[in-house]
Amino acid sequence: MNFIDEIKWTDDGLVPVITQDASSGRVLMFAWMNHEALRKTVKDNVAVYWSRSRKKLWQKGEHSGHFQTVRELRLDCDGDVILMRVESRSGIACHTGRESCFYRILEKEIWCEKEPVLKSPDEIYSGSADD
Amino acid sequence: MNFIDEIKWTDDGLVPVITQDASSGRVLMFAWMNHEALRKTVKDNVAVYWSRSRKKLWQKGEHSGHFQTVRELRLDCDGDVILMRVESRSGIACHTGRESCFYRILEKEIWCEKEPVLKSPDEIYSGSADD
Repeated sequence: MNFIDEIKWTDDGLVPVITQDASSGRVLMFAWMNHEALRKTVKDNVAVYWSRSRKKLWQKGEHSGHFQTVRELRLDCDGDVILMRVESRSGIACHTGRESCFYRILEKEIWCEKEPVLKSPDEIYSGSADD
Repeated sequence: MNFIDEIKWTDDGLVPVITQDASSGRVLMFAWMNHEALRKTVKDNVAVYWSRSRKKLWQKGEHSGHFQTVRELRLDCDGDVILMRVESRSGIACHTGRESCFYRILEKEIWCEKEPVLKSPDEIYSGSADD
């Protein structure tokens, strides 16, 4: 059985992917892959996701330049979630211009924004789609 | 708006949760919460999930003793994924007796088991449900 078939894909043919910075251990983002996205990711060693909203393949960084080089792919015990450890040259994973998408922390039952914006989204995308 | 309503829940009323060890940064597991699981988690500071297979609340550790004390809850930019940073006294998160559920690493297109079993599942559960 090949590594694609060992994964338990959703009925929509997707698998959730947790992306973690390989150096710092920070969890950067959460996204989805289909078969083709995973194959491309493995082949080229650069993160490619499936955009559920745009319904198309999405190479992280294709608009923003915030590419993610893949250091390691892990599969969980149930075979239905991937953990991808990456190196991000830009240090920005979030479309808001922050290092991580997980920048809101719960404090006294309020989600508080705690992380600096490293680059403004206007500057990152200048009219093109977020990625 | 309260912190529960700020989350974009799935049509099934769930939110995916990435659980990370607060000290080591290791990603331990991936599971789901419903409103009640999140409320209990916040109230008691101990991880409670929703089991999609058993269709019931599931306090992590209720059978295994592998409780997770919550150190921090984070929400992503889209408001539809939670990152929970925990402390695990036992050091075991996976029902296979490993530290992390993500113990298979892709090497030359083969998922290779790379992590030691710290405690045998028979010993952990002795007939009760995995958790």
